[in-house]
Amino acid sequence: MIKVIINGAKGRMGREAVQAVNNDSELEVVAQCDAGDDLGALIKATQAQVVVDLTIASAGFNNTKIILNAGACPVIGTSGFQEEQVKILQALALEKKCGGLIAPNFSIGAVLMMKFAAQAAQYFPDVEVIEAHSPEKEDSPSGTGIRTAELINAARRKSPTKCSDNELLKGARGADLEGVKIHSIRLPGVVAQQTVFFGGHSETLKIEHNSLSRSSFMPGICLACKEVVKRNTLVYGLECLMD
Amino acid sequence: MIKVIINGAKGRMGREAVQAVNNDSELEVVAQCDAGDDLGALIKATQAQVVVDLTIASAGFNNTKIILNAGACPVIGTSGFQEEQVKILQALALEKKCGGLIAPNFSIGAVLMMKFAAQAAQYFPDVEVIEAHSPEKEDSPSGTGIRTAELINAARRKSPTKCSDNELLKGARGADLEGVKIHSIRLPGVVAQQTVFFGGHSETLKIEHNSLSRSSFMPGICLACKEVVKRNTLVYGLECLMD
Amino acid sequence: MIKVIINGAKGRMGREAVQAVNNDSELEVVAQCDAGDDLGALIKATQAQVVVDLTIASAGFNNTKIILNAGACPVIGTSGFQEEQVKILQALALEKKCGGLIAPNFSIGAVLMMKFAAQAAQYFPDVEVIEAHSPEKEDSPSGTGIRTAELINAARRKSPTKCSDNELLKGARGADLEGVKIHSIRLPGVVAQQTVFFGGHSETLKIEHNSLSRSSFMPGICLACKEVVKRNTLVYGLECLMD
Amino acid sequence: MIKVIINGAKGRMGREAVQAVNNDSELEVVAQCDAGDDLGALIKATQAQVVVDLTIASAGFNNTKIILNAGACPVIGTSGFQEEQVKILQALALEKKCGGLIAPNFSIGAVLMMKFAAQAAQYFPDVEVIEAHSPEKEDSPSGTGIRTAELINAARRKSPTKCSDNELLKGARGADLEGVKIHSIRLPGVVAQQTVFFGGHSETLKIEHNSLSRSSFMPGICLACKEVVKRNTLVYGLECLMD
Repeated sequence: MIKVIINGAKGRMGREAVQAVNNDSELEVVAQCDAGDDLGALIKATQAQVVVDLTIASAGFNNTKIILNAGACPVIGTSGFQEEQVKILQALALEKKCGGLIAPNFSIGAVLMMKFAAQAAQYFPDVEVIEAHSPEKEDSPSGTGIRTAELINAARRKSPTKCSDNELLKGARGADLEGVKIHSIRLPGVVAQQTVFFGGHSETLKIEHNSLSRSSFMPGICLACKEVVKRNTLVYGLECLMD
Repeated sequence: MIKVIINGAKGRMGREAVQAVNNDSELEVVAQCDAGDDLGALIKATQAQVVVDLTIASAGFNNTKIILNAGACPVIGTSGFQEEQVKILQALALEKKCGGLIAPNFSIGAVLMMKFAAQAAQYFPDVEVIEAHSPEKEDSPSGTGIRTAELINAARRKSPTKCSDNELLKGARGADLEGVKIHSIRLPGVVAQQTVFFGGHSETLKIEHNSLSRSSFMPGICLACKEVVKRNTLVYGLECLMD
Repeated sequence: MIKVIINGAKGRMGREAVQAVNNDSELEVVAQCDAGDDLGALIKATQAQVVVDLTIASAGFNNTKIILNAGACPVIGTSGFQEEQVKILQALALEKKCGGLIAPNFSIGAVLMMKFAAQAAQYFPDVEVIEAHSPEKEDSPSGTGIRTAELINAARRKSPTKCSDNELLKGARGADLEGVKIHSIRLPGVVAQQTVFFGGHSETLKIEHNSLSRSSFMPGICLACKEVVKRNTLVYGLECLMD
Repeated sequence: MIKVIINGAKGRMGREAVQAVNNDSELEVVAQCDAGDDLGALIKATQAQVVVDLTIASAGFNNTKIILNAGACPVIGTSGFQEEQVKILQALALEKKCGGLIAPNFSIGAVLMMKFAAQAAQYFPDVEVIEAHSPEKEDSPSGTGIRTAELINAARRKSPTKCSDNELLKGARGADLEGVKIHSIRLPGVVAQQTVFFGGHSETLKIEHNSLSRSSFMPGICLACKEVVKRNTLVYGLECLMD
């Protein structure tokens, strides 16, 4: 049984993570804590092998250092790390010979969607991204939409087909991220959906992810707990722990 | 057997229409003609009851007058009529006691999609339109996309849910037609698709039309030929001949 | 304000209905009750105009009689009524000059899907139903799937296209309800989805409903409360209260 | 420029392949032939590096031997090879140091769909296959549907979720290929579509391929011509030539 601490255990995600980790036959929660607790001491007292951090973004960098310095493997669910910070933490992990993960998205389905999108973009340079969320979402496009477009751009080997793009109504052709169009739909009754739509020669390919709730992050958190203990580098993105 | 003349019979649509009408057990093509032929004389000589006009837009108004004056029922497939022109032709049809149709779209599926979209908009004020065509299409949004948004607006009884619409990348939220968002996708491998996406309280409803080719217009042309002979008014839009 | 009693208010659906009705600016909950309470007396004491019954199926018939005899309009959410019983209740409603509704499904989206399916079947006799639910669902096809196929059958004017249906693996072509194929998908991550897929001449039309939870029934319950008070017949099916 | 012979050039696929290969800037058709022509002699006369064989299935084995013996790389589009035959041809290719391909499907989109399906099945053991074709298709499920289910089975690491599968109407739950359900839809207006539908924990992932015509095979044929000349083994399946 791998010993796991959940940091940020009183938050909504944290409470669900405690349950999910305890329900996994290979994992057990040895402590729950929150901002204010002495995380380093707790790791030593419980001999925890993994710490799942679900606290606020601003605490992520320091928490990761504390976890690594205490000899445990960090599984960090907060976003907003700067590239520089990730490098510092990766160096520290190497020094401590600890595996670890910083992941902006723990949904296995979303991660596979992005991975497949990048693979398909090698063969189909013509592709648009359509994402749908509830009207409460503040920004558009979504972070996942932007990330998907970036991955597509990095993977494309050819330019997409030229297109007139004459808009009778401004905005019809969507947002443009270096040649990849992104369309953001905002409707009640939708939680989080994304379609990556590829057009080829007399054929199309769609990859479509649909998330009902943040519960979809739990299998990814459990997978990460089991994988980081087998490794000795800190990686960025859940996809790095998947084949 | 209803006697039908195809005007514009040498064009791509015309050739297909000749075949489709002849394949229908209730219809027969009694003459094929094109610009330059004396349409009025031909109607009299053949005693045609219906004339399907698939010539160019600019000829539509005059051809409809000739057809009505010769006592036949016009089925007009050209777009670009002005409101004033439609009224003149409707008055003429009434006087001549002839049924008739001017239709910007003969696809039964597209017409049903728009009809259903208007019906659903009464109950679901939150709705966006996503249309996809090949990169060769010059303008965006498509005519069908704009028409669908207009019908939705006319049918809505409530305002849609407020939404922040803060665009990190310009155009993400699509085009806005009086509050209805329209998103235009342009990809090879696509002919003509449209999805009308409704969001409700913990539920969504999608109406999705997909057209493979202009052959999809043929059943609508045949339906129109059979319906106009039963009527004595000229209507605009194939939906007016459907229950 | 229309005065509404919720019967079965302690059940999951009942609790949500109390909230939804109170949140509606035209409705107010004047009493909440459950099996064992004297419903007739409560109606008189509160002068309730509408009673929403969300108790168990076996109580539905008697509750409806009590509600009508007390002069209120019943909105009945229990299924399992026999045709004979519905007729008796409709006669009673006429006598009492009360409007009323018995509805197997309060989801406005599902009701529109079925209505549109019946309309489209007049023009597209070729259609299959694909429904998806979670693996916990006991029976397949779903009740909505069967009801949709029945409505399609009643509406079709032509036979569907002949098809070889040679199954290399038994069951590939799905269930057959008088010529309408129904396919049942059972997957985790799905709550309740249904697609009605029409095939035409070089075109297809899909109507797709997706429900996230039973919350999707609430707008239909509120709509029914407002409509039954305007009427003096008892109808079967929410669609009868929609245009 | 890679020199290519098209064998079976008078067939529908062959004619399209001649055009597609000639339109590719790295390829040129040096000869077109059909059953009856001396393929071996033609290869020598033209110094062709690749032979694309689009003749009938029964000729595939012999043609591949002739091509390899003449020192060219075979790209074989006929299906129906026995495992034993593939091994014999692979041994011959090794001996001759020639690359080659036998491919039951040249659609890049369909090949990616199957590849992604196998990858996702490692993480999502719950999955069903829905394929749609025109009513003329004789057998169900389609070959691609069966192949996809086989690949999913080989890739799954866990058993899928138990499900009651109580069919009120026989066939509702579809065909069963070792635990993977396959549903076959047959409708006019559809050419060839397939959806691989994965269900996870509060999320779903769909991979959807749509083919408009056999033209979708052409990019795969061209890709194969360019890849086989770089290799010295004969592989089975276009996916083996893709990253």
